Amino acid sequence: MRIHIQNDPADTDFLITPAQWQTAAAEEPPHEVSFGETPADFDPVRATVEVLVGPPRSLRPLRPLAAPRLRLIFSNAAGVDGLAPFDWLPPGVTLLNNRGTHGPKAGEYVAMAALLLAARLPALMAAQQAGEWRRLPAPPLAGRRALVIGTGDLGSAGARHLRALGVRTTGLNTSGTAHPDFDAVLPVAALDDALPAADLLVLACPLTPATRGLMDARRLGLLAAKAAVVNIGRGALIDNDALCDMLDAERLAGAVLDVFPVEPLPHGHRIWRTRNLIATPHQSCDDPVAYNARALAILAANLRALRAGAPLPNRVDTERGY
Amino acid sequence: MRIHIQNDPADTDFLITPAQWQTAAAEEPPHEVSFGETPADFDPVRATVEVLVGPPRSLRPLRPLAAPRLRLIFSNAAGVDGLAPFDWLPPGVTLLNNRGTHGPKAGEYVAMAALLLAARLPALMAAQQAGEWRRLPAPPLAGRRALVIGTGDLGSAGARHLRALGVRTTGLNTSGTAHPDFDAVLPVAALDDALPAADLLVLACPLTPATRGLMDARRLGLLAAKAAVVNIGRGALIDNDALCDMLDAERLAGAVLDVFPVEPLPHGHRIWRTRNLIATPHQSCDDPVAYNARALAILAANLRALRAGAPLPNRVDTERGY
Repeated sequence: MRIHIQNDPADTDFLITPAQWQTAAAEEPPHEVSFGETPADFDPVRATVEVLVGPPRSLRPLRPLAAPRLRLIFSNAAGVDGLAPFDWLPPGVTLLNNRGTHGPKAGEYVAMAALLLAARLPALMAAQQAGEWRRLPAPPLAGRRALVIGTGDLGSAGARHLRALGVRTTGLNTSGTAHPDFDAVLPVAALDDALPAADLLVLACPLTPATRGLMDARRLGLLAAKAAVVNIGRGALIDNDALCDMLDAERLAGAVLDVFPVEPLPHGHRIWRTRNLIATPHQSCDDPVAYNARALAILAANLRALRAGAPLPNRVDTERGY
Repeated sequence: MRIHIQNDPADTDFLITPAQWQTAAAEEPPHEVSFGETPADFDPVRATVEVLVGPPRSLRPLRPLAAPRLRLIFSNAAGVDGLAPFDWLPPGVTLLNNRGTHGPKAGEYVAMAALLLAARLPALMAAQQAGEWRRLPAPPLAGRRALVIGTGDLGSAGARHLRALGVRTTGLNTSGTAHPDFDAVLPVAALDDALPAADLLVLACPLTPATRGLMDARRLGLLAAKAAVVNIGRGALIDNDALCDMLDAERLAGAVLDVFPVEPLPHGHRIWRTRNLIATPHQSCDDPVAYNARALAILAANLRALRAGAPLPNRVDTERGY
């Protein structure tokens, strides 16, 4: 097929290289592959391209997508909220995401966050910065209860790690469909009832019209004072101002955030200096060594499915937004 | 038996209460139990006491131990280096420690430290303090190699957690005797050869004349630049000044320390502000809820063994120091 890979030159750690493509496509039939970085690089292939590959940031400037032979767009990111609404998607073109790429690192990040919040590390590190020996003994993580919103690649990887650490895990998804990595799964409609019992709330769902602002101030108020929050989904899932207010008032135990309402989070933003809050720059799930290899293997699996006339495993339902 | 429990009044989180003793001794035959906090509290029982219980800090001031009926001393701490040398121990008196108490929290602490060091969290938190969005993508922890010095309660708990996270774990103990929680165990004589391959070095052994200064500057120099260090044993196991020099020079990736050459670590000590170093105040293995219950259950098991004429499982070999 005629494949074009449009990189984001600013994201130097995650440029897809010809060598990475070669490795991933070793068992593929021959394809004609080109690489580009700017919208001008796309113009020469517009008439012939069948598969377009790239992160949302490099796909966005190519809209409207007047490419008559285009069949597939592969987003080299799992969250495609940056491409929504999807009215620019030409009829007959299928959007794929790279879900499945992020699990290994997401699971480790959730485990790290759960362990360090249970150990009261944010407060211990504030004491360290002050040069003060201040013991804050804490019971173990094992035996606590986690509520994980989202049972996809990220949420289920987090749940696997949490269960291995002895945490009781309840998942939430649209339908409440059971998932083997969770002790229980509830429909998202049961969220309000589930929040008060959670020691740890993990946000690991896509950002869609249905999830934007899901954890608003009212719902945050349903959490216990001993509870902590982890967000590896998207910043706009939660009312970050209300969260910071509660943390500063010690109305919540702590938070670990990897995603923010504005990214990059600007210098001087209150999130940087909120009490008992650890902020990492949207990298929780990104493995700089294996990311592209894993994503391209997923693309290859979808190309195989296309040739076989089978359903494409990574198709994005543009109505649902994931 | 005549049992005296000597608490350390300064350690308010870990005072053994009569209620804790009642619970732990529910299946014991009747004992006569007294509680004290000061050396003067010990004088009235000196003539009759058979079992003396307390943390090393409250046992130390009772020396020399002129207590004619004394048979057992139970240290409510696993590390008895604070009571060494043991020349004050009367002939015929057996010293027990509470090893087995610390495993659950030790395992979680080692897992937390390994995950946050792999994720470059110390550098990310320095960026957070500066209010700077600075991405530092990092490969996952899974697949890395840990070297754990000490295969006792702490080291084996750490190894179990590390293996569950996909880390290849090699243990080191005096004899090189295999242990089921480790992929391999080497004798400590092989330490120099094992250091260069380690991504993570975990110190989890007792402090004895044989281990004091074990990780001196020369051995630290055998570690790879990408390696990180975790110490949950004792501060004097390692040359902390050399470690800080290497961290400040970015000759090592990071460190997480829970124990220090002087405790409490004084205000202004360089360890508080060394680059990529996280310091917690000797609490990694202490569960404020379950600690005494677990320790007293271990004491009860030793009393049962004594009645049965069996070897005491927690006997300290005062020649080896653990």
